[in-house]
Amino acid sequence: MTATDSLATRSVQDVFAATHDERIAAFKEFVRIPSVSMAPEHADDCRAAATWLTRRMMQAGLENVEICQTGGLPVVYGDWLHAPGAPTVLVYGHYDVQPVAPIDAWDGDPFDAHISEGRITGRGTADDKGQVLIHLDAVSTLLTARGELPVNVRFIVEGEEECDDEHFEDWLLANADRVDADVVFVSDTGFFEGDIPAITVGLRGLVSLQIDVHGSAVQLHSGSHGGVAENPALALATILAGLVDESGRIAVDGFYDDVVELSDQQKSALADLPFDETAYLDQLGVSASVGETGRTLLERRGTRPTLDVNGIWGGFTGDGLMTIVPSSAHAKLSCRIVVAQRPERIVAALRAHVVAHTPTGVSVEITELGGGLPVVVPTDSWFVDAASRAIDEAFAQRPVFVWEGGSIPACEAMSRILDIPVLILGFTPPNCNTHAPNEWMSLDHYERGVMTVIGFLDRAGARG
Amino acid sequence: MTATDSLATRSVQDVFAATHDERIAAFKEFVRIPSVSMAPEHADDCRAAATWLTRRMMQAGLENVEICQTGGLPVVYGDWLHAPGAPTVLVYGHYDVQPVAPIDAWDGDPFDAHISEGRITGRGTADDKGQVLIHLDAVSTLLTARGELPVNVRFIVEGEEECDDEHFEDWLLANADRVDADVVFVSDTGFFEGDIPAITVGLRGLVSLQIDVHGSAVQLHSGSHGGVAENPALALATILAGLVDESGRIAVDGFYDDVVELSDQQKSALADLPFDETAYLDQLGVSASVGETGRTLLERRGTRPTLDVNGIWGGFTGDGLMTIVPSSAHAKLSCRIVVAQRPERIVAALRAHVVAHTPTGVSVEITELGGGLPVVVPTDSWFVDAASRAIDEAFAQRPVFVWEGGSIPACEAMSRILDIPVLILGFTPPNCNTHAPNEWMSLDHYERGVMTVIGFLDRAGARG
Repeated sequence: MTATDSLATRSVQDVFAATHDERIAAFKEFVRIPSVSMAPEHADDCRAAATWLTRRMMQAGLENVEICQTGGLPVVYGDWLHAPGAPTVLVYGHYDVQPVAPIDAWDGDPFDAHISEGRITGRGTADDKGQVLIHLDAVSTLLTARGELPVNVRFIVEGEEECDDEHFEDWLLANADRVDADVVFVSDTGFFEGDIPAITVGLRGLVSLQIDVHGSAVQLHSGSHGGVAENPALALATILAGLVDESGRIAVDGFYDDVVELSDQQKSALADLPFDETAYLDQLGVSASVGETGRTLLERRGTRPTLDVNGIWGGFTGDGLMTIVPSSAHAKLSCRIVVAQRPERIVAALRAHVVAHTPTGVSVEITELGGGLPVVVPTDSWFVDAASRAIDEAFAQRPVFVWEGGSIPACEAMSRILDIPVLILGFTPPNCNTHAPNEWMSLDHYERGVMTVIGFLDRAGARG
Repeated sequence: MTATDSLATRSVQDVFAATHDERIAAFKEFVRIPSVSMAPEHADDCRAAATWLTRRMMQAGLENVEICQTGGLPVVYGDWLHAPGAPTVLVYGHYDVQPVAPIDAWDGDPFDAHISEGRITGRGTADDKGQVLIHLDAVSTLLTARGELPVNVRFIVEGEEECDDEHFEDWLLANADRVDADVVFVSDTGFFEGDIPAITVGLRGLVSLQIDVHGSAVQLHSGSHGGVAENPALALATILAGLVDESGRIAVDGFYDDVVELSDQQKSALADLPFDETAYLDQLGVSASVGETGRTLLERRGTRPTLDVNGIWGGFTGDGLMTIVPSSAHAKLSCRIVVAQRPERIVAALRAHVVAHTPTGVSVEITELGGGLPVVVPTDSWFVDAASRAIDEAFAQRPVFVWEGGSIPACEAMSRILDIPVLILGFTPPNCNTHAPNEWMSLDHYERGVMTVIGFLDRAGARG
C-alpha cells in the first residue's frame, strides 16, 4: 500500500486539514503572478498564470489538462469524466485580474499576497483566483480522500474576463461540443451585505463607450482665446451632465424602452432581504445614496439600468495653474443594462444623444469599449436546490437570492452559446474590494467554500 | 584708440549687424535653460537663468547688476542712470517659462532652441525670454554704438510670472523706492491677428480655482454600487456644466455685478480693427466661435469676463475599460475678469455657486490657485505716442490699440504698488503658441523689436 492509497482512504475533512499549508502556499503563489489581462506588458504573466494552473489541475487529479490557444490569452481546460450516468458540472473561472491603479491607494504591493487576521490580501484574491481554487481544492480533496468524484467535472478557466475581449466567446463557439455539461457553476460573485450567502438570480449586462471631444489641434492660451474657442472640457462636462436628469433617470431617448419591470413577487422578495441601508452606505463611505427616485436601493443596485462615468481626463492636470483651453477632453462611461435591453440598441441611443448634445465649435468621437447581455437564472432548478443545501451545511445559513449589479459576460456567452443553465454562486465577503485597492478574500469563506462545493457535488451525484 | 572705442563710434545699425551671431547664440543659450517656475524640480534651472541674465546684463553695459533674493525665485536687477534730466524707463520681463506638457505634442525637445525658416522655436522664445532680450540688446547696441543712452533705464526681470506666486509683489512692495521710474515698459504680449503691431490698452485679470469632488474613499465596482453611489466624475460634470448657460453667459449669481460696459467709442474702435474672423478661427483650428451672444468676437475675447476649464481628471484613464465609480474627480478652472471686477468677489461667487450645485452623496473642496486685477492703460500719454512712432519706423506700420484677453498680474502689481503708468507693447506674432507646444518667435520681429525699443528710447530722451 502506497502513501497515496493510504491518503485516499482518509475522510474528506482529514485530507482537507492535512493539506492546509500546501493549499495556502499555492493560493499565494497564484496571486503573486500579476496576470493583468488589460495591460499588454503583463501578457507573459497571464500565460504564466495559465501554466501555473495546468500544474495545479494535474496535481488535483484532473485529466486532459490543456492550455487551449485562442486569439488572445489561452483558456485552461481540465476534466474528470469517470462517473458514468452522473451529471456533468462545468466549472468556469478566470485567472486574469483587474489593473491595480491607483497603485498609491494600496497598503502594500498588490501582488505580494499576504495573510493577516484571517484575510489574504492582493489583486485577484477574490476576483477570481481564490474562487477558482475553491473548486479545484474541492476536487483535489475528494479525489485524494475517495479516489473518485460523485459527478463528472470539466474546468474552463479563461484569461480575458477583465478585458472583455471576444476571444473566449470565439473559443466557446469552436469548442461547444467539448465542454458539454448539465450546469455551469460560476463563482465570480460574492455574499450579500451582512455577509449572507447569496445565489445570484440575475446579472446585469454592460455597455461601455469612450467619448473624445476635440477642439483646437493645440491647447490654447485661455487669456487670448478663452470666451471665443469652445472649451472641450466644458463641452464634455455638458455632454455628461445631460446624460442623467435630476430625478436620477438616464435622460437618453429610448434608453428604457426594452426594460422589463420586476414582478410584484420579485419586488417583495427584494424588499424582504435583510438589508441595513445605513450600514451599507457607511461601508461605501458615502453620505447618501442616489439614483432613480421611486425605486428602492436594492432595486436600483441590481435590477435597474445605470450609467457611470468610469474616468475623465483632459488639459492640464499637474500641480498649480496652467491657463489653457485644452485641445481635447475624454471620458469613459459604462451602462449596466437589464433584461431585455440589447447592447447594440443602447449604444445607438447613447451615440445619438451624445452627438445631438455636443456643443458647436468642438467635434466628438465615440468608441465602443465592450459589453454583454444581462442573464437570468432559474431558481426552481435541482442545482439551485443542491447548492442551497450545501451552503446551509457549510455556512450554517440558508442563501438569499439576489440580483447582482455587475456583469459577467462569460455567463451570458455560456448561457447563450452552450445552452446550459448557469449556477452563479460566489464566496467572497461583500466588502472585499474587488476592482479596488486592497482586494482581499476571507480564509474562512475560502474553506467553507470548498466544503460547499464538495457538498454540492455529492448532492449532484446523488441525483445521477 | 582701442577696438571698443572704435566700435562705439559706429552707427547703431552697424553695431547691430556686427553682433548678429553673438546675439542669436545668446538667445539660444537663454532658451536652453529649462526655467519652469511651476515645477519645483526646475528651481535650480530657474536660478541658472537668473545668473545667466546677470552676465548678459553686465555684457550689455548695465550697472548695479544684482540677483535680488525674494521668498521664492530671485528678481534680476540692473540699471544705467547717467542721463540726468531725462526720463527713467523701467523695463519689466520674466525669465521663467510655462511647463511643456503635453510633451508629446512638441515636434522636438522644447528646450533645444533651434532656428528654421526665420523662426526660433522653444519654450520661452516668445513668452518671455525673447522679449527680455529685445530690450537688453537694444540697450547693448546703443551703449556699444554711442557709449551712452538717451534716457535712464532700469531692468527688473522676475522668475515667477508663470506660477503667479506673490514673491515678486512682496519684493516690489519692499523695493518700490529703488525702482522708481516714469513709465514701465512691459513686453509680454504680441501682435494683433494679421501680424499688426499692437499696443495693449487693457488687460484682463484672473481668478483660478481647483475643484475636488470626493465620493467614497475607494473607487467602487460600478456593477455592485453604480446607480446607488453618486459618481464624482458625473457630479463634477454637473457642477461644471452649470457654470455657463446656453447663451454663453456665466451662470453664477453676482458674477457680472461689477463689470463696466465698454463706451460706444471703445466699441467702435474695436469694431474698426482689421480682423478676419474666419482666418482667426482657421488659425485656432476650430469650426466656430462660442461665447456670450450679443457681443462681437473681439469684445468677447478681450473685454468680457470668461470662464474656462483648464484641466479635468478622475477615475480610470488608461487603455481599455475599468468598470468603476471613481472615488474622486477634479477640475482646474479660471476666469478672466475685467474692470472693475474684484478677484475676491468673483471667488466668493464661484465658491457659493459650486457648493450650492454639488449633488448629494459627494463632498466638494475648492482651492484658490491665484489671480490678479485687470489693468487699463492711458492712450493719450507721451509714452504711447513715442512707442507708436517707433513702431511705425521699425515695422513700417502704425500700431492698433487692443484689449488683451490675457492677464499679466505683474502689470497690475506695478501699476498699483509703484503708481507708475504701464506701456504694454510686445513683439510676438499672434500664432506663436505661447503656453502651448512648439512655441516660437519670429527673428524678424525680434530684430525690428530691438529697433523699436531704440526708437522709443531716443524719443523718450528727446522729451527730457
